[in-house]
Amino acid sequence: MLTAELIQEAADFLRGRIRRTPMERSQALSDHLGVPVYLKLESLQETGSFKVRGALFALHRARERGVGHVATCSAGNHGKGVAYAASELGMKATIFVPSSVDESKLKAMASLGADVRISEFPGYDETESWALDECESLDLPFISAYDDFEVMAGNGGTVALEVLEDVPEARRFVMPAGGGGHSAGFSFVVRDRFPDAHITLCQHEQSPAFQMSIECGRAVTELPAFQTLAGGLEGGFGTNTFNILRSRYTDVVLVSEAELRRAMRWMMAEHGHVIEGSSAVALAACFRNDFERPDAPTVIFISGRNIGEESLNNVLDEAD
Amino acid sequence: MLTAELIQEAADFLRGRIRRTPMERSQALSDHLGVPVYLKLESLQETGSFKVRGALFALHRARERGVGHVATCSAGNHGKGVAYAASELGMKATIFVPSSVDESKLKAMASLGADVRISEFPGYDETESWALDECESLDLPFISAYDDFEVMAGNGGTVALEVLEDVPEARRFVMPAGGGGHSAGFSFVVRDRFPDAHITLCQHEQSPAFQMSIECGRAVTELPAFQTLAGGLEGGFGTNTFNILRSRYTDVVLVSEAELRRAMRWMMAEHGHVIEGSSAVALAACFRNDFERPDAPTVIFISGRNIGEESLNNVLDEAD
Repeated sequence: MLTAELIQEAADFLRGRIRRTPMERSQALSDHLGVPVYLKLESLQETGSFKVRGALFALHRARERGVGHVATCSAGNHGKGVAYAASELGMKATIFVPSSVDESKLKAMASLGADVRISEFPGYDETESWALDECESLDLPFISAYDDFEVMAGNGGTVALEVLEDVPEARRFVMPAGGGGHSAGFSFVVRDRFPDAHITLCQHEQSPAFQMSIECGRAVTELPAFQTLAGGLEGGFGTNTFNILRSRYTDVVLVSEAELRRAMRWMMAEHGHVIEGSSAVALAACFRNDFERPDAPTVIFISGRNIGEESLNNVLDEAD
Repeated sequence: MLTAELIQEAADFLRGRIRRTPMERSQALSDHLGVPVYLKLESLQETGSFKVRGALFALHRARERGVGHVATCSAGNHGKGVAYAASELGMKATIFVPSSVDESKLKAMASLGADVRISEFPGYDETESWALDECESLDLPFISAYDDFEVMAGNGGTVALEVLEDVPEARRFVMPAGGGGHSAGFSFVVRDRFPDAHITLCQHEQSPAFQMSIECGRAVTELPAFQTLAGGLEGGFGTNTFNILRSRYTDVVLVSEAELRRAMRWMMAEHGHVIEGSSAVALAACFRNDFERPDAPTVIFISGRNIGEESLNNVLDEAD
């Protein structure tokens, strides 16, 4: 279960093991939205994304239960986070990745000492079912990238504690939502402290799993893959994360591929930071006409910077 | 005079006013050089460069002396640092800039409330003489970008204290040297603590002011401008900084424009960070054949990330 105690335990464990990432004021967005706007730059976190928080905490808790070897399925930031966490904590990690995995991510996980298993399937969903079967036969505990309470506590809860410490007057929060691991932990902390806080979840218009889940009244846990720079936002929502978020979110904004690419260029031009596509949806949301104007200091969560050089080059090459 | 006390005073003043920037381990450079290699990422500092340190400390000391309005000459990171410091400390800043100033830098300084005066000259040296004349007639104290002891204490001294706290075993230090403000303060601290430390200064081959100063036995304070992405490393050396560095540096490595552009792409591909050309010379030096192999843990100083979007795009577009 997700509790304030679990989140505090995660924060205590992570102190000194991860970076305290900066909160950067955005003058341009403050001017645009008419309230002070801050960016929580988890793109500057160790491993290039916030996912290392949940990975470190979940592996630590597994180790406390006597586990020395864990498995996960991810070709992205969670996989990198788990590989890093295992190497830091002296554990073994087996990481199942789709056959479409990018060479540089594979290299990064392997160089951290992870045992990387490449699936015969290019998509995430088939790879995950294969991974779950393998874990069962190998008797390996599987750490979900999002639908796990320790991951939620680490990924979202501890970020929220830092955000509220650094900008205590913030009441509007804007963040991307993929499987919901970050946003569930984050909104759990914020809503408890400020019942009137406004929490905006941002998704890709081609993969609006949270919005569909709200409409159905239950978590839509699978959605087809598609070509996007926001790979972290593809696919279905978590069941546990949906149950936490359904009573805590305020609204959802959907963003197009062109909008998120434009937001990546904006971030580079205005702040000089590279961010990945999944991070850019939250920024892109703020520039849309259907974005409800904030009436309080606003924090935008910037989740990661892991993007291939070629993709970045393509994005920067486009004219506005 | 530069003293350990002045540097400690700068560090005490800056605590909580600037970011404690991360020290990022570089696995690829560690493999290449055969020793642990760390990057001190001042490119992630507030304002996008370390220059804000010296600016804040120098303006604070000026304020203590009863000064409410200062001037400087810079179209780059020092100008942005002074504009930011004045706005933080409730002071006025007049910044003289060459006519070649880039629009985005001008906007950044003006939006921080600085009074920006554009010179009729495109070059730095003529602009600075005009600025010094204007300051004399306006009775404004002028804060040099590098040849000032408070700037050296803030820019180089305080960075060195953090580096030695974070990687106490480091004995090799590699850094760019422009006017010498950072490297003088940095080497003052390091050499005092570790007389056997190896300090490598890196310059652009078309503007080797420090190497020329060593050969002449006195500071070469002016050099012609040229077209480069490493604008911070153009021009002459400081007289005070040269006197501090001549007995403290170990060697100099000169780098070409092509090498520094390649190092910018390497940083993006390996670490996912944008850096400006002046920062890249220190990285580029490590890949040269004439770079003396380190025999101890090594720290490379990454000074800033302020680069125009178009220049970045051009660099990333090049193939290796």
